[in-house]
Amino acid sequence: MIIYIAAVAWEAGKPLVIEEVEVAPPQAGEVRLKILFTSLCHTDVYFWDSKILSDLLISHNLVRIVESVGEGVRDMKAGDKVLPVFTGECGECGHCRSEEGSNLCELLRINTERGVMLSDGKTRFSKNGKPIYHFLGTSTFAEYTVLHAGCVVKINPSAPLHTVCILSCGFCTGFGAAVNVAKPKPGSTVAVFGLGAVGLAVSLLPKKFGITDFLNPKDYDKPIQEVICEMTNGGVDRAIECTGNVQASIQAFESVHDGWGVAVLVGVPSKDAEFKTHPLKFLQERTLKGTFFGNFKPRSHLPSVVEKYINKELEVDKFITHTIPFSEINKAFEYMLTGKSIRCVMSMQE
Amino acid sequence: MIIYIAAVAWEAGKPLVIEEVEVAPPQAGEVRLKILFTSLCHTDVYFWDSKILSDLLISHNLVRIVESVGEGVRDMKAGDKVLPVFTGECGECGHCRSEEGSNLCELLRINTERGVMLSDGKTRFSKNGKPIYHFLGTSTFAEYTVLHAGCVVKINPSAPLHTVCILSCGFCTGFGAAVNVAKPKPGSTVAVFGLGAVGLAVSLLPKKFGITDFLNPKDYDKPIQEVICEMTNGGVDRAIECTGNVQASIQAFESVHDGWGVAVLVGVPSKDAEFKTHPLKFLQERTLKGTFFGNFKPRSHLPSVVEKYINKELEVDKFITHTIPFSEINKAFEYMLTGKSIRCVMSMQE
Repeated sequence: MIIYIAAVAWEAGKPLVIEEVEVAPPQAGEVRLKILFTSLCHTDVYFWDSKILSDLLISHNLVRIVESVGEGVRDMKAGDKVLPVFTGECGECGHCRSEEGSNLCELLRINTERGVMLSDGKTRFSKNGKPIYHFLGTSTFAEYTVLHAGCVVKINPSAPLHTVCILSCGFCTGFGAAVNVAKPKPGSTVAVFGLGAVGLAVSLLPKKFGITDFLNPKDYDKPIQEVICEMTNGGVDRAIECTGNVQASIQAFESVHDGWGVAVLVGVPSKDAEFKTHPLKFLQERTLKGTFFGNFKPRSHLPSVVEKYINKELEVDKFITHTIPFSEINKAFEYMLTGKSIRCVMSMQE
Repeated sequence: MIIYIAAVAWEAGKPLVIEEVEVAPPQAGEVRLKILFTSLCHTDVYFWDSKILSDLLISHNLVRIVESVGEGVRDMKAGDKVLPVFTGECGECGHCRSEEGSNLCELLRINTERGVMLSDGKTRFSKNGKPIYHFLGTSTFAEYTVLHAGCVVKINPSAPLHTVCILSCGFCTGFGAAVNVAKPKPGSTVAVFGLGAVGLAVSLLPKKFGITDFLNPKDYDKPIQEVICEMTNGGVDRAIECTGNVQASIQAFESVHDGWGVAVLVGVPSKDAEFKTHPLKFLQERTLKGTFFGNFKPRSHLPSVVEKYINKELEVDKFITHTIPFSEINKAFEYMLTGKSIRCVMSMQE
């Protein structure tokens, strides 16, 4: 057992504590990674603040180097540059083999509650014998972490490591919602609801932020979907909802043009949310679909997104508004909670 | 002005009355047709019984021969065999020109309330000077009728005229919902909600009625979507709702598999219906879309459906459960209201 530095969420909603923790070696089918850069996502803050989880190593946005691999892992070796992803790809289940685009791997799909490794139901983190649980299968606020190999994506080592980490969650969620799901044709009108990192990634069509109009619903006396339909001669060709607010989901759907409009839901709604609309809106040939992680199958598709970034086809750097040392991790929470940051990258090296 | 026989709905919900009516000649852009065979559809019965319309020549399912054409009509001539359709295709609006499949022509899309011709706002039917209004732009319970040329589809004259009439509404609505919208891949599981003419047409995949299991929701203690998901290892690949009942719409959507399932709404809901579901069902990569007339653009696409029928690729004949002379038209209403018929064809010749 080796001792490493990590930031532990001992208690929900309270500042993380930098601790020395033990990180067990990888078991069969697992990989142990050395973290270089990590970042903070709304999902981390949501669960950190949710009062339902504690004793966690949170975060899921990062870049790492493989430190060692467990038995049976053949496609990665020590020294490989990788992105870990909060949802995996076993490559063998009905979803992974589906030709219809699902990335909801039966074995490794996102699980916000498991907290342990699949192989033995145990955590690889501990402090003085007390287990510290994993979060979203990644747990990257640590010098070293252990993941199922199916959640680890080998990438081109020439990618800029201090920025590429943000491709592993919100960026691809938004970008994929646009290019894999909404698929607007050239010249289409697209309404994006919510302009955090996800909504901004949606707006990278094809290479640059292409937003022409900004609407604040508070500036209008009528529902925003009516405003949008009036501005666009009956509705937009595509609408993409990136907030998780169910009213915004309904507004997004009701903003698309009859005959061909497609609305895509990206934001995660609350547990008791209810989507309501008149069914005639569907019969007028509108489509509503949802996406998870932009429909990217992580291991199959992320390497090509990294290539696009390397080839300067994606303006990823602008998403990073702050860079701080890992030891100041609680500042990253403050930046996000006060709306100051889009993405704050933390370096483990400083 | 020439006098012809027609069945007039003088009063909502009351038997039609066979009358001698006057049928004015076609104006610019219009066509006057001689009806050979006509049929009755649920939509006719719905509006006949709705207490909101009267003095109507209803029905919209038929086959006719062009009797004369108005000024500017160049693609049809007297003697052509045609199918009239309750929704048209002007060929020039944003919907008709859309590459994304809309058939909701701005000029000629279904209008249940207009009752008059677009060119001059007048009806072409009258009796002793009293106007009799058109219904769905077709009004085929008559020896002769007048339509906008954009609602008239020229077909291969070798089609069997006494049966091909049913292609002009419910059949194509269901068949198109399957082949143009739901697009199941070979080997897919498909749940069809409602087995009237529309649902049966959905089931013609690829050539024959391919239904393997029949479920009656009343036979189960749990919601039918749960029954379907258990039967199909998580849900069907496609679900198609053909009743118009909004609860069935919700059940259809919640019956499809996460990751790739697509539900298609076909049945027309009541005005105050509300579609409700948890938005997470969408985020798990399910799609919900609606269709109108199976997304067929009538003039562009119906001739090829007729060809398929001529080539025996579609089992249309089985839909016709009754054939009666036009003079016995009220029997057709009785057959439908008592659930005895799928389609009842009426001949104007007998």
